[in-house]
Amino acid sequence: MKVEVRVYPKEGVLDPQGKAIAAALGRLGHQAVRDVRAGKVFFIDVAGADAKAAEADARRMAEELLANTVIEGFDVKVVS
Amino acid sequence: MKVEVRVYPKEGVLDPQGKAIAAALGRLGHQAVRDVRAGKVFFIDVAGADAKAAEADARRMAEELLANTVIEGFDVKVVS
Repeated sequence: MKVEVRVYPKEGVLDPQGKAIAAALGRLGHQAVRDVRAGKVFFIDVAGADAKAAEADARRMAEELLANTVIEGFDVKVVS
Repeated sequence: MKVEVRVYPKEGVLDPQGKAIAAALGRLGHQAVRDVRAGKVFFIDVAGADAKAAEADARRMAEELLANTVIEGFDVKVVS
């Protein structure tokens, strides 16, 4: 199964990387950009054919390793 | 408009970060993990109400700044 985990800064948490990117985009002429939040995405190939199990597994991976749940949220999507 | 840009290593491009994460997940007991590819995701807030324009704009941002198109692919999705 292919699972996609997205990890992003929680609402209210400062995101200096996103701010820097927003400023750089402004300097490049993208004046319409109001805000940028920068996160990570992990494409995980998990053995097995049980989508529910793969999703639960990926959720544990996010909690244990991929996300810092103090400051980051995450979501999990089984792609195929 | 809220636009989401995902940037990820192209097929065939070495992804040492993904490899390191896959190995770490294995050590944590996630034996079912076969492969991990690590990418980035940017949540961009763009002024205006034209979804087509926002998407085209985000595509230019990806090409100019967010992605290194030599080694990275990207996709753009208008969320709202």
